[in-house]
Amino acid sequence: MNVGIIGSGQLGYMMINEGRKLNNRYYVLNSNGFGPASSISDGSFDNDSYKEFVDKCDIVTFEFEHVNEEALKYAESIGKLRPSLRSVELKKDRELEKNFLSSNGIAVADFRVAETFSEAKRYAKDYGKAMIKRAYGGYDGKGQVLYDHGKTEEMQGEKFVVEEFINYDFEASIIASRGSDGTVNFHDPSFNYNSNAIFIYNRAPIDDYGMKAISEKIMNALEYVGVMGIEFYIKGGKAIVNEYAPRVHNSGHHTLMGSSISQFEEHIRAISDLKISKLILYEPSGSINVLGKKFDKGEINSILSLGETQIYWYGKEEIRKRRKVGHVNVTDRSIEGLKRKTEKILDILYGGNINDFISF
Amino acid sequence: MNVGIIGSGQLGYMMINEGRKLNNRYYVLNSNGFGPASSISDGSFDNDSYKEFVDKCDIVTFEFEHVNEEALKYAESIGKLRPSLRSVELKKDRELEKNFLSSNGIAVADFRVAETFSEAKRYAKDYGKAMIKRAYGGYDGKGQVLYDHGKTEEMQGEKFVVEEFINYDFEASIIASRGSDGTVNFHDPSFNYNSNAIFIYNRAPIDDYGMKAISEKIMNALEYVGVMGIEFYIKGGKAIVNEYAPRVHNSGHHTLMGSSISQFEEHIRAISDLKISKLILYEPSGSINVLGKKFDKGEINSILSLGETQIYWYGKEEIRKRRKVGHVNVTDRSIEGLKRKTEKILDILYGGNINDFISF
Repeated sequence: MNVGIIGSGQLGYMMINEGRKLNNRYYVLNSNGFGPASSISDGSFDNDSYKEFVDKCDIVTFEFEHVNEEALKYAESIGKLRPSLRSVELKKDRELEKNFLSSNGIAVADFRVAETFSEAKRYAKDYGKAMIKRAYGGYDGKGQVLYDHGKTEEMQGEKFVVEEFINYDFEASIIASRGSDGTVNFHDPSFNYNSNAIFIYNRAPIDDYGMKAISEKIMNALEYVGVMGIEFYIKGGKAIVNEYAPRVHNSGHHTLMGSSISQFEEHIRAISDLKISKLILYEPSGSINVLGKKFDKGEINSILSLGETQIYWYGKEEIRKRRKVGHVNVTDRSIEGLKRKTEKILDILYGGNINDFISF
Repeated sequence: MNVGIIGSGQLGYMMINEGRKLNNRYYVLNSNGFGPASSISDGSFDNDSYKEFVDKCDIVTFEFEHVNEEALKYAESIGKLRPSLRSVELKKDRELEKNFLSSNGIAVADFRVAETFSEAKRYAKDYGKAMIKRAYGGYDGKGQVLYDHGKTEEMQGEKFVVEEFINYDFEASIIASRGSDGTVNFHDPSFNYNSNAIFIYNRAPIDDYGMKAISEKIMNALEYVGVMGIEFYIKGGKAIVNEYAPRVHNSGHHTLMGSSISQFEEHIRAISDLKISKLILYEPSGSINVLGKKFDKGEINSILSLGETQIYWYGKEEIRKRRKVGHVNVTDRSIEGLKRKTEKILDILYGGNINDFISF
């Protein structure tokens, strides 16, 4: 089978790598120079050749929601796109996403839609503290600012979603999947630690807090096929959806170690009409991002010496602040042991000064 | 780092695929047309270009011991070969291998060396029941015949090793590894089931029976760097070495699921001077070979529906009896559960008639 992936970053790279177990060929539509996924693919196409790319493939998926729309539409029009166009289109406009979630009875932060930034500030003032998010093109903490009782940064945009700030206890996410026969699966949910609006580390398992039921509702409403990452705020023991990503997710890298099947392999199975079945987390498992720095052999060896650790090094040449160049997977028999190892890894990588590597 | 792999079969394929986590490029010396490993490598060289291949790589390893000798020798001469030439050369002549093992105090089957097949038969007659093995070029049950009180098939050859037949309780193996700093590691040993001199399935863990100590002795004597597969006969609770393979091994495929690190990733780490550390088997784990048959989607889905199963499908075009076209990994909470799943998988693949697929 020929599998097409739109986008050529590290998520596509890991999708191909995990998908190599099966007898597929993997082709990449590369919107942005020759990325990591292209480098290990069976062939790469540029944006102008999107039709040729889609025609060559039996199924087409994507590693990111802000990719070549013509390719998505063309693949959908001939029945090859998985997950469906609708699940991506909802992500292109935060207003649509919010309405979709709340109309399906899913708890989200209270919100209002504003046409201008000054209107957005007025709504934010009513909340006291709020997140102002650009409706179009935002992801991974990009395109959003905090409004805190009159104080905020300015932001350009055509339309904004203003969300009441949730003073959450912590952030969490779940990697969910749905097969073409409607079977629904979950990796164990994880506690996620973000700083400066960037994902730093996570660990699984944590309690469910209703995340599975919510994820199932979202996927069924979309007749979704593939892996989806859903981010939550947990407050007072209740899960409130922050957003969903219609693809494999940054917070699911830990599934590469200590899980029976990784999110990437699960995605390839689901979109290829193969059966998916219960996912097992063998041991507490986490991942730590390597951001804005070189990854040297001394550090790698210190991390590997901890035991039950694994390095993913994406081989990006250019290092800049906040840029993710790799991640570390870690497992341990106990959650306490996992926490200790995570602290040690953060210390090896950032020496207590993580802000130097992730500030804007 | 540029890593060179001599040989282009499925072992090389899995080495590259598991090694993609690290920021290396992988080149293949392909003695035999365009094999699986070449198809996912960063570049492929033919035998005539072996010097160019070795020069391009920082380290050179191999996926099989019967490969281009000139390439092995050239890589060794400039300090790039891992594991060393000696560990391969011992494997090219069973007499050398046997003498090496017994001179290091390691229990092997009693043996004698014969220059002709009729001499070999005389020695075999003294044992009553014996294996007559060609000294050169044998592997995986090839180049050997059973002598049983006068009955045997004839075999051509220049030199033979005649081994007293061991009426073993079962066969077992261990995947061991040694880092460039001398650290020694082990995956849990496995019970192996062979039939018609071909590996059918295995499962781990089993008791040690002294296998770790023996493997450590072999690796230290060779100042070995990398992963080694060592096969044993277990009789009366004691381990007797059958043979060792100076490479990743057919009986280590189960380490791809349910283990913290696979044998392939472990090998790449060891030969790259990265630290290796204790390997964890999260759950009982096994693998089942797919031999001499097509692997259809119905069968794949039946196997995947069992849960905690994973398919490796090598994409070989030509199917013939005894040819390995893929394998299945399986894990389960309990050994009993693992055994039940293994039986089901064998039934799905071979329907009780495995001999139809593996006879000579």
